[in-house]
Amino acid sequence: MKYYAYEEFKNDTNTLKNKVRDFNPEALLAIARGGLTLSHALAEGLNIREVQSIRTELYDKTCKRDLITIFDTCVFEKKSRILVVDDIADSGETLEAIMKHLAQKYPAIEFKSATLFYKTTSIYEPHFWVQEANDWIDFFWERDFKD
Amino acid sequence: MKYYAYEEFKNDTNTLKNKVRDFNPEALLAIARGGLTLSHALAEGLNIREVQSIRTELYDKTCKRDLITIFDTCVFEKKSRILVVDDIADSGETLEAIMKHLAQKYPAIEFKSATLFYKTTSIYEPHFWVQEANDWIDFFWERDFKD
Repeated sequence: MKYYAYEEFKNDTNTLKNKVRDFNPEALLAIARGGLTLSHALAEGLNIREVQSIRTELYDKTCKRDLITIFDTCVFEKKSRILVVDDIADSGETLEAIMKHLAQKYPAIEFKSATLFYKTTSIYEPHFWVQEANDWIDFFWERDFKD
Repeated sequence: MKYYAYEEFKNDTNTLKNKVRDFNPEALLAIARGGLTLSHALAEGLNIREVQSIRTELYDKTCKRDLITIFDTCVFEKKSRILVVDDIADSGETLEAIMKHLAQKYPAIEFKSATLFYKTTSIYEPHFWVQEANDWIDFFWERDFKD
C-alpha cells in the first residue's frame, strides 16, 4: 500500500495537464468521487470553467462481471471535445462502461480519458495517464479525512 | 493575499466535517469549480458516496448586481438532507442564488451549506463554516496547477 501524498499529486497533475493540452478539451467530466479533486486541479490549470460530474454504482451480483449503473444527467451544449477524468484505471470496468455510454449517448462529441494511474491489468487504457500502478494506491483524499 | 496550502485545508476540512456531522447529509452537492476538492474530501470523510455538482456563470452587466445563471441538471432520488459545498462565501451572491433556487426546485429536501471561509461582508452566511476571511484567499488548487 502506497500513500499518495498531495505533493506527488501536484507534480503528476501538472504532468497530466501537459499531456492533455493538445486535445484542447472544452469541458471536463469528473467521475465521482475519484476524479473530483483531479478535475478541479486540471480545470484550474487548463483554465476550463465547465466541470460536470457523473457517478456510478457497482452491484456485485457475484456474476463474472459486476453490474455498473451510470447516473448521467449531463447537458453538454455546443461541445466538441470533453475530457473524462478519474484517479485510476484499476480494473478499468467503470471507465470502459462510461466511455462506451458517452460515445453512444453523445455521438457528436469526442471524449478522451485521463487518469493519474493505470494498472496494466486494466481492461481499459486511458488516452492519457501518468504513472503505472503496481500497488494499492492510498490517495490522500481517501486517508486524510477519515476519523 | 494569503496562500492556502494543502495542510491547512486538511485541518480545516476535518473541522468542517465534524461541524456538519449532526446534519447527517445523504448526498453532497458541489458548486463547481470551487467546491469540488472540498466535496471530495468531505464525501470520503463522511463516507457519502453520492456527490453531484452544479455550476454557475456570472454575467457582469455592470448593473447593481451581477446576473447569475445556474446550470442544474441534478437528480435527487429519495433524499431528505443534502449538503451544498463551496470553498468560500465571498460576496455570497452565488451561494444565496443557489440556495434559493434549490429550495424552490426541490421543496421536499432540506439543503444546508458548508464552506471553508466566510467573509463577514457576504450577503449570505453558510450554515457551517470554519474560518473568517479578511484577505484574498489563494487556494492551493488555484495556484499549484497554473503554468
